[in-house]
Amino acid sequence: MKKILIQLDGDRFASVFDAITAYDAGVDRILQYSGVRPEDVRNLVYGAMFTRGGDDLRSSAVFIGGSDVSHGAEMMKAAVESFFGPIRVSVMMDANGCNTTAAAAVRKIVAAGQVRGKKTVVMGGTGPVGMRAAAMLAGEGVRVILTSRSQERSEKACAMVKERFGAEVTPAEVRNSEDVKGILKGAYAALCTGAAGITLLSESIWLEHPDLRVLADVNAVPPLGIENTKPHWDGNEVAGKIIFGALGIGGLKMKIHRRSLVRLFEQNDLALDAEEIYDIGKAVENE
Amino acid sequence: MKKILIQLDGDRFASVFDAITAYDAGVDRILQYSGVRPEDVRNLVYGAMFTRGGDDLRSSAVFIGGSDVSHGAEMMKAAVESFFGPIRVSVMMDANGCNTTAAAAVRKIVAAGQVRGKKTVVMGGTGPVGMRAAAMLAGEGVRVILTSRSQERSEKACAMVKERFGAEVTPAEVRNSEDVKGILKGAYAALCTGAAGITLLSESIWLEHPDLRVLADVNAVPPLGIENTKPHWDGNEVAGKIIFGALGIGGLKMKIHRRSLVRLFEQNDLALDAEEIYDIGKAVENE
Amino acid sequence: MKKILIQLDGDRFASVFDAITAYDAGVDRILQYSGVRPEDVRNLVYGAMFTRGGDDLRSSAVFIGGSDVSHGAEMMKAAVESFFGPIRVSVMMDANGCNTTAAAAVRKIVAAGQVRGKKTVVMGGTGPVGMRAAAMLAGEGVRVILTSRSQERSEKACAMVKERFGAEVTPAEVRNSEDVKGILKGAYAALCTGAAGITLLSESIWLEHPDLRVLADVNAVPPLGIENTKPHWDGNEVAGKIIFGALGIGGLKMKIHRRSLVRLFEQNDLALDAEEIYDIGKAVENE
Repeated sequence: MKKILIQLDGDRFASVFDAITAYDAGVDRILQYSGVRPEDVRNLVYGAMFTRGGDDLRSSAVFIGGSDVSHGAEMMKAAVESFFGPIRVSVMMDANGCNTTAAAAVRKIVAAGQVRGKKTVVMGGTGPVGMRAAAMLAGEGVRVILTSRSQERSEKACAMVKERFGAEVTPAEVRNSEDVKGILKGAYAALCTGAAGITLLSESIWLEHPDLRVLADVNAVPPLGIENTKPHWDGNEVAGKIIFGALGIGGLKMKIHRRSLVRLFEQNDLALDAEEIYDIGKAVENE
Repeated sequence: MKKILIQLDGDRFASVFDAITAYDAGVDRILQYSGVRPEDVRNLVYGAMFTRGGDDLRSSAVFIGGSDVSHGAEMMKAAVESFFGPIRVSVMMDANGCNTTAAAAVRKIVAAGQVRGKKTVVMGGTGPVGMRAAAMLAGEGVRVILTSRSQERSEKACAMVKERFGAEVTPAEVRNSEDVKGILKGAYAALCTGAAGITLLSESIWLEHPDLRVLADVNAVPPLGIENTKPHWDGNEVAGKIIFGALGIGGLKMKIHRRSLVRLFEQNDLALDAEEIYDIGKAVENE
Repeated sequence: MKKILIQLDGDRFASVFDAITAYDAGVDRILQYSGVRPEDVRNLVYGAMFTRGGDDLRSSAVFIGGSDVSHGAEMMKAAVESFFGPIRVSVMMDANGCNTTAAAAVRKIVAAGQVRGKKTVVMGGTGPVGMRAAAMLAGEGVRVILTSRSQERSEKACAMVKERFGAEVTPAEVRNSEDVKGILKGAYAALCTGAAGITLLSESIWLEHPDLRVLADVNAVPPLGIENTKPHWDGNEVAGKIIFGALGIGGLKMKIHRRSLVRLFEQNDLALDAEEIYDIGKAVENE
């Protein structure tokens, strides 16, 4: 029985990246749907639920993507609400790569040192990757500070992390170098999840920092989030710090993405969102 | 040579159900087109006609679907009119599952008893499934009554059955329980093809009916068309009646749908509509 | 690793013809995108560039089609401009079949005789196939005249041929039989690339022409471009002339199209447009 993935994407053109990745993960056929709205999801998911039956339900699955993460989250909700008891198919949400990227970045940080119980700063953390990474770190027993240039936005993001993931994260406003220095005082790790092409951590700060042990950056577009590092660094040591660039994280991200797709077809009742994808990250990081 | 199906669908998103079913019937590749209008069909069909030639034409075929049956019928007409003599590909029309559902329901009724020459009532028969089932039953030598809550609509439906299928079917208005009792007098079988979630035949009527021998219902959404039956009944006997629910019929419907798709790729000159799909139903019902 | 083709098409429905041809050329999976604008191309091409890496980049490729050739040319430009150094995928442009048709027609003419250094007339040559064929012929050392019913349009087309292909082609206005006779004086070959269903060369002219040795016509819709010939003629000799009809040319066109698609997946840095596709025509014409 062919493994069929229904790709639901809110963008005008369903992601080429997501489709190629799915084929490379062993999916046999993809049905691509572009411009999907949350209210369209139920009918499309029904088409997967009511065609094959019994054990064969595991050979159909749904992938939810697109560049807009909150749109993707709404589609995920609509998909899960479409199911009737055991009549369901597995579904994965990774709009804009948010879950796989956050999971990969956090797994890199966790595996690199002894972050549990220590202070970690998620810089520029109000976006989907930052909020997810903050929640995943908190789940590992890390004391997480989530920063933004605006106190209001960082508070709002922390509230959303609390509501969506049940995780306690502390907001902080960071507007200049002095703020950065202040917030990093006593920090063991820092993760930059700001917008592409914006430097959040200058070399003069991280290079001389007495406590920082692990640095990670998901921005691959110059200028990078962490000044004078390289996107391909994958745990490189510089001045006693272990550093991960976006491409270094990207390798693990792809593994997590592909493994998640493989998992979709092993049973018919998975709903892979941040938490589940993070667990998959734990399972694959050493393979 | 890969078996390629061109799926033409009038809806905003081409049916997931139809695509998965096609793959499960052995189709190698599907080209899905959503939002197709009848005037778009010719050019799309040309793409199938003028690519492969000779015997290879049988490896390309067209499936016409979507939720709007009259739209599907117009697309079917446009497809068939696109062909030039032997330069053609096989095409199947099953918008909203109308042909496969009607064929399955009628085959269940015919195979369950001795309906030839007897009176059968198609209740709520003015929709695509009802009209097609009425024509198929008439083709088996059954005396068919087609009911509606409106005399005018039942007459219009019977006229359409006459025009499209050349079959004689008698219209009847049924507005209340007394009407139902009246129209079922002397009936051997009853088939409910009304809208989902509307009961057409109450238990008090069918349970005690002296002549009714076969009951069938294509509505799977509670409340069912025939009160106090089960969708999965597949010829279950209750009070001397043989009863088919929507899921019981659905198993045969899927077999007919898949076999029709297989047939599409055995020759290049099939046009599978109600009549041809009904014949396929006869061929597969005992397999 | 599966060979994945990203089909970018400017029309409302991506071409069925192009998709079937790609599958027949051994492509494993196609991602079809309809209604693509030049400004959409970059993001779609990025999806192909940043998923697989290294040698695997050659297993992803882009096909640019649609009925509007200038739209296709703009998309081709956008695709090529998306690449970063070695991070690229192969891409082919054949909107409206312009390149494969022109290449096939010219290869037929060149292979049929000794056209180098001689005068050849491309009749009705202001469209995409005519301009490309004129440039290809000029590249073979042929003296090319490109005709139109309007002097202005023929001059404009020749200027575009000069600009796009660097080829010198002479414009000419041809409005009636006397003009046709005049322009064909001393011509060795004539290629008709006018609109479908319009005769450009009457039998009375070509049949008695003293010098014409090779005739070719890409119009398959009656009335043909060359009166009283047959579309399936593939080098048939009549009255001492070697004649190619649209279907005769079409066989080679399909070979060129398929081989170009095969080539796309042999390396990751091809950009197949008129020149490259013409060279592929040379390589496959005798296979």
